[in-house]
Amino acid sequence: MATFGDIGVAAAINIITAFIFLIAFAILRLQPVNDRVYFPKWYIKGLRTSPTASGAFVRKFVNLDYRSYLKFLNWVPDALRMPESELIDHAGLDSAVYLRIYLLGLKIFVPIFLLTWAVLIPVNLTNDTLERSKETFSQIDKLSISNIPHGSPRFWAHVAMAYIVMIWTCFMLKREYQTIANMRFYFLQSEKPRADQFTVLAKNVPRDANETISETVENFFLVNHHDNYLTHQVVCNANKLAKLIKKKLKQQNWLDYYQIKYSKNPSTRPMMKTGFHGLWGSKVDAIEYHEAEIEKLSTEITEERKNVMNNPKAIMPAAFVSFKTRWGAAVCAQTQQARNPTLWLTEWAPEPRDIYWKNLAIPYVSLTIRKVIMGVTFFFLTFFFMIPITFVQSLANIEGIEKAVPFLKPIIDVKPIKSFIQGFLPGIMLKIFLILLPRILMLMSKFEGFISISRLERRSASRYYLFKFVNVFLGSIIAGAAFEQLNTFLHQSANRIPETIGIAIPMKATFFITYIMVDGWSGTAGEILRLKSLIIYHLKNIFLVKTERDREKAMNPGSIGFNTGEPQIQFYFLIGLVYAVVTPFILPFILVSFCIAFVVYRHQIINVYNPKYESRAAFWPDVHGRVITALIVSQILLLGLLSTKHAVASTPVLLALPVLTIGFHMYCKGRFEPAFTRYPVQEAMNKDTLDRVKEPNMKGNLKRYVENAYMHPVFKDEDYEYHYDDGSMVVPTKRQPRRNTPGSSRTDGGVALLLPEVILAERKP
Amino acid sequence: MATFGDIGVAAAINIITAFIFLIAFAILRLQPVNDRVYFPKWYIKGLRTSPTASGAFVRKFVNLDYRSYLKFLNWVPDALRMPESELIDHAGLDSAVYLRIYLLGLKIFVPIFLLTWAVLIPVNLTNDTLERSKETFSQIDKLSISNIPHGSPRFWAHVAMAYIVMIWTCFMLKREYQTIANMRFYFLQSEKPRADQFTVLAKNVPRDANETISETVENFFLVNHHDNYLTHQVVCNANKLAKLIKKKLKQQNWLDYYQIKYSKNPSTRPMMKTGFHGLWGSKVDAIEYHEAEIEKLSTEITEERKNVMNNPKAIMPAAFVSFKTRWGAAVCAQTQQARNPTLWLTEWAPEPRDIYWKNLAIPYVSLTIRKVIMGVTFFFLTFFFMIPITFVQSLANIEGIEKAVPFLKPIIDVKPIKSFIQGFLPGIMLKIFLILLPRILMLMSKFEGFISISRLERRSASRYYLFKFVNVFLGSIIAGAAFEQLNTFLHQSANRIPETIGIAIPMKATFFITYIMVDGWSGTAGEILRLKSLIIYHLKNIFLVKTERDREKAMNPGSIGFNTGEPQIQFYFLIGLVYAVVTPFILPFILVSFCIAFVVYRHQIINVYNPKYESRAAFWPDVHGRVITALIVSQILLLGLLSTKHAVASTPVLLALPVLTIGFHMYCKGRFEPAFTRYPVQEAMNKDTLDRVKEPNMKGNLKRYVENAYMHPVFKDEDYEYHYDDGSMVVPTKRQPRRNTPGSSRTDGGVALLLPEVILAERKP
Repeated sequence: MATFGDIGVAAAINIITAFIFLIAFAILRLQPVNDRVYFPKWYIKGLRTSPTASGAFVRKFVNLDYRSYLKFLNWVPDALRMPESELIDHAGLDSAVYLRIYLLGLKIFVPIFLLTWAVLIPVNLTNDTLERSKETFSQIDKLSISNIPHGSPRFWAHVAMAYIVMIWTCFMLKREYQTIANMRFYFLQSEKPRADQFTVLAKNVPRDANETISETVENFFLVNHHDNYLTHQVVCNANKLAKLIKKKLKQQNWLDYYQIKYSKNPSTRPMMKTGFHGLWGSKVDAIEYHEAEIEKLSTEITEERKNVMNNPKAIMPAAFVSFKTRWGAAVCAQTQQARNPTLWLTEWAPEPRDIYWKNLAIPYVSLTIRKVIMGVTFFFLTFFFMIPITFVQSLANIEGIEKAVPFLKPIIDVKPIKSFIQGFLPGIMLKIFLILLPRILMLMSKFEGFISISRLERRSASRYYLFKFVNVFLGSIIAGAAFEQLNTFLHQSANRIPETIGIAIPMKATFFITYIMVDGWSGTAGEILRLKSLIIYHLKNIFLVKTERDREKAMNPGSIGFNTGEPQIQFYFLIGLVYAVVTPFILPFILVSFCIAFVVYRHQIINVYNPKYESRAAFWPDVHGRVITALIVSQILLLGLLSTKHAVASTPVLLALPVLTIGFHMYCKGRFEPAFTRYPVQEAMNKDTLDRVKEPNMKGNLKRYVENAYMHPVFKDEDYEYHYDDGSMVVPTKRQPRRNTPGSSRTDGGVALLLPEVILAERKP
Repeated sequence: MATFGDIGVAAAINIITAFIFLIAFAILRLQPVNDRVYFPKWYIKGLRTSPTASGAFVRKFVNLDYRSYLKFLNWVPDALRMPESELIDHAGLDSAVYLRIYLLGLKIFVPIFLLTWAVLIPVNLTNDTLERSKETFSQIDKLSISNIPHGSPRFWAHVAMAYIVMIWTCFMLKREYQTIANMRFYFLQSEKPRADQFTVLAKNVPRDANETISETVENFFLVNHHDNYLTHQVVCNANKLAKLIKKKLKQQNWLDYYQIKYSKNPSTRPMMKTGFHGLWGSKVDAIEYHEAEIEKLSTEITEERKNVMNNPKAIMPAAFVSFKTRWGAAVCAQTQQARNPTLWLTEWAPEPRDIYWKNLAIPYVSLTIRKVIMGVTFFFLTFFFMIPITFVQSLANIEGIEKAVPFLKPIIDVKPIKSFIQGFLPGIMLKIFLILLPRILMLMSKFEGFISISRLERRSASRYYLFKFVNVFLGSIIAGAAFEQLNTFLHQSANRIPETIGIAIPMKATFFITYIMVDGWSGTAGEILRLKSLIIYHLKNIFLVKTERDREKAMNPGSIGFNTGEPQIQFYFLIGLVYAVVTPFILPFILVSFCIAFVVYRHQIINVYNPKYESRAAFWPDVHGRVITALIVSQILLLGLLSTKHAVASTPVLLALPVLTIGFHMYCKGRFEPAFTRYPVQEAMNKDTLDRVKEPNMKGNLKRYVENAYMHPVFKDEDYEYHYDDGSMVVPTKRQPRRNTPGSSRTDGGVALLLPEVILAERKP
């Protein structure tokens, strides 16, 4: 068992690590040469250009102004200063709402922290159960529920606190849900006309031997929505074409590389081997070889493009159907079209840039099979990953190691080493395990066939959370405990699990404290450094960049990464709710990590990330649902824990908790969830009417515009990998921001002017 | 423990009882005087008139034709002969689908019965565990899972059978769901135009200080559904008016009674006391008194009617909104109207005769509170009802009684008394308890505020099922077992319950066998006798009937009673599924009861019941859901049972069962449930187009018709309690059916002609 001393050492290590990251960041961000790594968002918005100011050559790369280094933490107030409404304009609703998850955490846990420390810690501390027992214990256990004797009436304090935690959490959740639903409506209402507002994605179009898909779609919607139907765009299977274009792009990159190499050293023409990754094969002139390759690919691309356009087999049974009004689209998206509810499935179309085009080509039959396969795969992934974790976790218990490998005892007993092992190792090992996981999960979601990037990320997020729940949460608790009580555990029946976990929970508090410090303190501070992006940017800059456009491509601002970030926050919610009543000592650690993360991510959202899509906070029901899940888990585990403490009378009282929580969830689902999945006809009609007044000639251009919007990107622009059309055009008003601050809250005059798409439509060929 | 002999005695008693009922029915139904009790459906359809054939006076009341008595079971083939399509024409889709529940039971349980008897009974029987144990056991236990020794590999046979049961049940459920969804669509498509197809009920209309509700509704729908909106009918709070009319009707009945009395004996004018129920007070002339009362009430009614019409406070924030096309109604019913999803709630309007008018006047705020109150009430009702049941159930165990009250032993030990107590008493006592319950539950549903009778019945049914599950199923199992192992049980934690129930299940097989015989054999046979209706009809005939119309009113054909009948069937499904693997000996008893019930209810539906509404099989998702619940319960209990049998390896295999079942349920919910709640726009458009071709002048009359259809019945007809307008007019083609058979399958030429409502609308003032 870790002592206060161990925790202190771990905290010190993590605080120092975090400070090192922050200072490194403060220095690196001030160097002009890194400007595009730390402020890419401003470049993308056109509000900042490369630091080509007059002056010494060296000042283009290194900041020599010593005063700017003194104010190295200035970015914190800068990050906090931008008001939320401006943040929404600047970075989109998704980002602004994402930050509110951290705020929600603070709103929930600050009062719980104050109350539990004021009530439960004295209640727990004024016992001597642990002292009288013969087991070893630490001071932290004295602050926890473990210190209450069996069958004590003091457990009623914990039961009452469980109720307070539930009521407060639900109250905050409800308020937040309401706020975010309103923000979403306000956002939708204030948006300029966009293609996705008029468009519905119709899937599972039945194939007809006598008609093409396009004709079937047109006939169906002309008949069943004849007043509203405008046009449609069938979906083609352009995956092969996309692959060819990607290949050509890669060859182009190599060609660039060799051309730069040649221009730097014109005496020798660069040579290369044609075999695998240039490792073997005959030696050829690299520039000529790549030019020939690109030529060949270009021909293939032209042919494949013709093929996709003309081959009826390349047309998928899905279409983007556009309507004359938002009302028509809202109605079509919300109603059932055909008698068979698995045919003519309609849903509100995602933004054009949000669509994951590859998956539109997947036929429906295979979708179900893919889902099943991925379900089984995920089950095995989750439960077989546990084997290494179990091993690593078991190291966290030093007494266990000493027993198992007694000859290591003298080394481990050295005080700093012991503290280091206990405070640092388990968290870091877990982290390494988990780094690879989001990619695997994302691949799995893609295989499963979701058609928008936002849905892909949401699915990956929920799987990642489940994985963390089973492996990090349950895995840490049971595996650690299993090392001690493996024998008793194996012979237990399945339904005793809540009890077993309940008993183990107080013992694992220190592990989770160190986990939070590594993951939430040092880890978050590391995020701001963007070490990986920094290195890649400079490598690209040296080897590939020829033009200003290349430099822009090399920036890679990244995005929030909902699929990894949100489960991480949710994991803190889970730990916080589970331990709120059991070991309230853990709460301040979580609060600190929320604070750090809020500031860091707010800074990143303002200065770095460039969102791939705008889902208008569509993820909030997931966030809400997972907090509810955590609440229910905490209640069931408390029930299990107390039932082993011979507090029998508390069982029925505690049983009501999950029931009430589920009831609350149902209520919220009915009251708020529709706001995130449906477009009310009144709102649609309202906006339609406003548009008619504001832009009376929009109707004529609408058809041309929506047709273009949902064209597969390979038909629009060969360079589509780096090109996202967000559906509304940005006319940047270039401006030189102040050198050392991103000018975050001072851009009132510089906010991009959003012009309606009608203008865009006019300009397109 | 009951022996085969005890079960034999119980079976004999129940078979004899059932036969007595059937013979009594055979005799009573042949008497012309009872004709209106046993064939009311044909009178209502106008296909049969009173037996006023020429002949002796006595033959009007008693059937003297001895030959007809010989064929006393002839009604059985008659009941089975009518094909399903004709049955739907004759009695509606609801009734036809209701009968399919019994068929589903047979389809599920016949193969399971054959398989379990062929496999599990030999597996169980060829052991000697029970003989070697010191406990008492019966031969039935030898056929059950109890006879397998702990940890035996033979349990794999049971696990495999649990899988087969699940797969087969799910397969049949899916097929049936599909069939019924298709029947529903076919029925909808073949119906004549009806008001409810064009109408949507809009609830929670926001109140506006400057507008009446009617204006608000009109404005909202003119704006948001301007192409489709036709008209609307606001809902008024006419509950006081309805009460007055009811009171007047009652006084009218008494007046009739005294007038008949006076006409029979003109020498003395009938006198009455004015006090409570005629028990005290001053004596007055009864006819004059009632005439004066009716006069007074008529004035009050006229005034109240004016009040309701003119008082804006009597208008509720709800309206029936009608559209020009079915398409418009389907769209409005399926879309979310306003930003706040609790305002402007729209749903497909129920049939006019299905509406429970009283509840349309309940404001929304109070609805939520009512729901909570009823939830809590139901909880207490369910769990406090257990006290008497527990006591009665404990009597079922004769050894227990002997131990508890040793001086009764000599009496109980008399063989026939013992068998009687064990075979008959527990079922009967439970039945009495349960007779009152449906009324209470119906009142609770009404208080909860559902707006259609079909929804009221569905809610009552699901509560009744829950009640039966907790009290009859769990109550019988635990209470009976608790009598034996009370001590061990009280000190168990909540999560051991599945195990405890699992252990007790095999012991309770005999109790459920007798329960099925009393409830499903004798009880169902008793249903056909209609003893209560018979008595009431003859009483009314003597005291109240003056005209042919009065006689028609006295018939009271009743309806299926979905709220009591369906939970009963579901209870058999539950017992069948739970015992299929544990004690397959129980299955033939269930099969017999399904057969009896199918024949009896088919007869009653053809000849007696007059459905109050036609919900177009909207109850099927409930039926499906409850069978799924029973399946999951059976799987969890098997898990509990096997975990006590030290068949540890089976636990993970069994855990997959409920998971798979829930997955299947999800699939069915997505695939079939929409068919029961939504009207696909393609179907609506289809039918609209057909109508336009068939009745081109319908459009003009539609408005007048739908306005009338959803007028509160008190404004239409004072006698509304007995008047149901089903929305399509019936022009009967009178015809004299054959005397002793209802001519069920021979009515091809006599099927009522359904004329479209446009004609009805023409005729209405």
